[in-house]
Amino acid sequence: MPLTDEQRAEIEAQRLAPATTNRPTVPALEALLFKPFELLDHGFVRVVDYMGDDSAVVQAARVSYGRGTKKVSEDTGLIRYLMRHRHSTPFEMCEIKFHVKLPVFVARQWIRHRMANVNEYSARYSILDREFYLPSLDQVSAQSKSNRQGRAASLSPERAAHVLDLLRQDASRCYDHYEEMLDPDGVGLARELARMNLTLNTYTQWYWKADLHNLLHFLSLRADPHAQYEIRVYAEAMIDILRAWVPITCAAFEEYRLGAFTFSAGMLAVLRRQLAGETVDQTNSGLSRREWDEMQAVLQST
Amino acid sequence: MPLTDEQRAEIEAQRLAPATTNRPTVPALEALLFKPFELLDHGFVRVVDYMGDDSAVVQAARVSYGRGTKKVSEDTGLIRYLMRHRHSTPFEMCEIKFHVKLPVFVARQWIRHRMANVNEYSARYSILDREFYLPSLDQVSAQSKSNRQGRAASLSPERAAHVLDLLRQDASRCYDHYEEMLDPDGVGLARELARMNLTLNTYTQWYWKADLHNLLHFLSLRADPHAQYEIRVYAEAMIDILRAWVPITCAAFEEYRLGAFTFSAGMLAVLRRQLAGETVDQTNSGLSRREWDEMQAVLQST
Amino acid sequence: MPLTDEQRAEIEAQRLAPATTNRPTVPALEALLFKPFELLDHGFVRVVDYMGDDSAVVQAARVSYGRGTKKVSEDTGLIRYLMRHRHSTPFEMCEIKFHVKLPVFVARQWIRHRMANVNEYSARYSILDREFYLPSLDQVSAQSKSNRQGRAASLSPERAAHVLDLLRQDASRCYDHYEEMLDPDGVGLARELARMNLTLNTYTQWYWKADLHNLLHFLSLRADPHAQYEIRVYAEAMIDILRAWVPITCAAFEEYRLGAFTFSAGMLAVLRRQLAGETVDQTNSGLSRREWDEMQAVLQST
Amino acid sequence: MPLTDEQRAEIEAQRLAPATTNRPTVPALEALLFKPFELLDHGFVRVVDYMGDDSAVVQAARVSYGRGTKKVSEDTGLIRYLMRHRHSTPFEMCEIKFHVKLPVFVARQWIRHRMANVNEYSARYSILDREFYLPSLDQVSAQSKSNRQGRAASLSPERAAHVLDLLRQDASRCYDHYEEMLDPDGVGLARELARMNLTLNTYTQWYWKADLHNLLHFLSLRADPHAQYEIRVYAEAMIDILRAWVPITCAAFEEYRLGAFTFSAGMLAVLRRQLAGETVDQTNSGLSRREWDEMQAVLQST
Repeated sequence: MPLTDEQRAEIEAQRLAPATTNRPTVPALEALLFKPFELLDHGFVRVVDYMGDDSAVVQAARVSYGRGTKKVSEDTGLIRYLMRHRHSTPFEMCEIKFHVKLPVFVARQWIRHRMANVNEYSARYSILDREFYLPSLDQVSAQSKSNRQGRAASLSPERAAHVLDLLRQDASRCYDHYEEMLDPDGVGLARELARMNLTLNTYTQWYWKADLHNLLHFLSLRADPHAQYEIRVYAEAMIDILRAWVPITCAAFEEYRLGAFTFSAGMLAVLRRQLAGETVDQTNSGLSRREWDEMQAVLQST
Repeated sequence: MPLTDEQRAEIEAQRLAPATTNRPTVPALEALLFKPFELLDHGFVRVVDYMGDDSAVVQAARVSYGRGTKKVSEDTGLIRYLMRHRHSTPFEMCEIKFHVKLPVFVARQWIRHRMANVNEYSARYSILDREFYLPSLDQVSAQSKSNRQGRAASLSPERAAHVLDLLRQDASRCYDHYEEMLDPDGVGLARELARMNLTLNTYTQWYWKADLHNLLHFLSLRADPHAQYEIRVYAEAMIDILRAWVPITCAAFEEYRLGAFTFSAGMLAVLRRQLAGETVDQTNSGLSRREWDEMQAVLQST
Repeated sequence: MPLTDEQRAEIEAQRLAPATTNRPTVPALEALLFKPFELLDHGFVRVVDYMGDDSAVVQAARVSYGRGTKKVSEDTGLIRYLMRHRHSTPFEMCEIKFHVKLPVFVARQWIRHRMANVNEYSARYSILDREFYLPSLDQVSAQSKSNRQGRAASLSPERAAHVLDLLRQDASRCYDHYEEMLDPDGVGLARELARMNLTLNTYTQWYWKADLHNLLHFLSLRADPHAQYEIRVYAEAMIDILRAWVPITCAAFEEYRLGAFTFSAGMLAVLRRQLAGETVDQTNSGLSRREWDEMQAVLQST
Repeated sequence: MPLTDEQRAEIEAQRLAPATTNRPTVPALEALLFKPFELLDHGFVRVVDYMGDDSAVVQAARVSYGRGTKKVSEDTGLIRYLMRHRHSTPFEMCEIKFHVKLPVFVARQWIRHRMANVNEYSARYSILDREFYLPSLDQVSAQSKSNRQGRAASLSPERAAHVLDLLRQDASRCYDHYEEMLDPDGVGLARELARMNLTLNTYTQWYWKADLHNLLHFLSLRADPHAQYEIRVYAEAMIDILRAWVPITCAAFEEYRLGAFTFSAGMLAVLRRQLAGETVDQTNSGLSRREWDEMQAVLQST
């Protein structure tokens, strides 16, 4: 259970005092505000604040005095144009802030996205909760043979159960000793030292804030099928949030980024030959086996 | 006159449709929202959106679930502590967006602050207005002899009038020829080329968005007495806006940054000798003449 | 003439004292070091320092202790893989520093690339030279009707000559008055004010340093046919420098970035129908006219 | 032992093929190049490449064509001026790249410095070594009562020995199970999952590259007495490297940053009263107890 009753009460209290504002406001996102999207076994992501909407992208692209055009069709066309031609600055004019609870090893991947603002719960200053990530049975997967940084099928139920036992026992014992070392009633070890005994699946949490351009970049990498499952579930929840917040931008993002594919110069040459009626296979394509397979996968998917 | 009637009407229209939000809202800043602070002869700065408030700084520093403590005194103490010890990340959790109209030579200084988001009016795409900065008479100042990048006293009225004549005539003539080259009714020169004929005091405008930490950094450098007058007036107006938006942070900023002074190791050694009763002058201080003067200026100001 | 004899002598003097280093060194780039590539009428770009080479990309990707593998084929394969899958951090491990002389309106575009380090010649502190950009006759082009931010054909010789006369006369007169206002022998106007009388084609110069990843991003945008000609010539010269510095990375960049094209989800659907033998035209493609034209242009180019 | 014989051999091999370069070269840093500075029980930091020197700072500040002035005294004065007045861009013109081996909990602090380039050893792709940090006996310290994120005195020898036993046993057992789960000879758990069983004192390594300005910022925070001991030892070793690389900049950094202290507006008011002969104590100072203590500590240190 990701949240305690007390935390839920704190979150609820924020909803009780709505205010009046002249800022751009998105009712569909207001409805999601503060609400935790529960993920993994103890994680969540929730929006705690936002700035701007689809119109703010348009307004900035035009450096206009008011709220931009009234015609939705023109705004949609402009946003699609900006996305297709990889204009980044108008999308930087929107901003969103999340509160995220996530395992440390996921946090270590996530933090590599530098163009964001982060405040993490400090284990120098505070004591971490006894919460650690244990995969669900179907996620206890074997190492992929073909992809050195990926997963293959799930392990057998017996093997998976054994793995989960090891993970659970080690995390528990390490946490027990963390508490013992801290010894809050006596002369305990410094918190900044004791934390080093925790395992990398321990949950941490942070406030994470990014502009829309950098959020899209994060999502394009982390919602990708090659991203590790444990970060991908966060990215996927954030795309649902994106859709509520900036629906026109989200649709353009799916059309021109998530659903797109970049053909290299060599792949374009193959395409031109194919469209001219020539039969091309990998051996006469000039492409490596891997590039050929990537290209075919895209052209045959439905 | 910085704004046309049409622009004023567009701005006013934004105020007419207030919305309800659960986001942190600052009534004092809502009152200033969209309103242009007029500066120089044709410039302005106006807030078009914001995210967060003083409590958001506290909330992020504590990674809390709700709005932070209710006690203002505790929040104030924490914000002052964060400011004094140069913690930057909690201040990054607030964001503000301005619409600014400013001369190109000021824009060239301003843009050097890279940790901000900018959309500038494009002179490749659009035609710039006939507006250029002419200093007021008292700002037509001589080159400083002591400071290679500063100003001394105002020029004599006759000399200043002559300077203003040259500035006005050159900017006007350059703009006339810009229009002539564009020749909108015939086959005009490309806008991206014609703009090169304009003088550097031509006004441009942009949307500029920054987080509170980077805004404070900008203000500490550009509200400084050594900053050029023409950018300082923008920074000073923005400090007034800051005060309405995050009054506790603003007060801490004035106490620990704007009103503070950093003593070097050598200056600290002098201070210790002085407080021990020794009479120290520049010759036996170990400080350069310039450092000595800077130190005395701070210790003797009132 | 972009450089004075004195400047050339200073540049030459740097070549006379070679040193011994254990750092990665690229003979082909050493041969270009300090040498100005002359551009436009008074501009140049020259490399003044660099760090790393193709092997440094490989070494960082592998976090290796030594210089990476000896086999060039493996390194090439890895670099191509990294480029294809848009891995950015290994390319950030190389760095290059340029000295660039360029018109102010070009500098204003260039500075928008924020992930770089810049020191510009200060017109608050120093006096700018009498040098301004005048396009060559064939570059005096009309405004494009189809592309609001582009150029069409050259103007007629008579019209072009008139444009050049206006540009030359206005820049000259403005510079004359700049000098008159500065009045170096009397009580001159502050340099920080006098500069505002200069036109936007005045030359400035700066040191500009970027890592290889950000350099490639800059080049992909500024060597693009849609970039303004006056910045594109710099990007093209820098690609020649890139080829000497990191030939494997440069080839991968041309294959997977410069020569590549991204098909949107809708374009991929069209491709799949075409490869299955269906005849598709714009009206039944589901694509806008503009997207359809962009796609056909890529598929039919040779 | 931080390095294997094989790693030492790889490192040595890099020294054997010196090259000739016209780039700025620093013999004192060349002598340290590649050499690991051993830290903690298994860590190290070593320079693997660099760009620029003290003269490069001067050269950029002046945007000069050659190597800057010949007079060392002028260069020193300029560098001290730039440091005192917090000019940052000239220092960005130098760059340095380190290879660092460090515990994961230290890496998590370090990575918060975003303005740097990083490639970390991937535990998705590779298997981590059996190496984890165990503090030396004198560093097994109690939690500070006065500073919620600091350490007090060492624990008693018996208690410290017990803590070390727990740390050693838990890290060992977790690593044993990591290996068992990976099961390299059978169908092992995916590496990206198995790693989550490791403790936070496991060693990782990365290439870390920063410009001189951002390096100084990192050092000013991480060589500070309030920084955690385990990251401070890295910062201190890096200051030794800094001194070899850019001795003038390093001295200015120690004078104006490391050895300096910022007095707030309120502290300056107290100082002025004291220098005027008034006796001020905390109760009539207008300062909080904490600020008063910080100020007195600086004024009385020797």
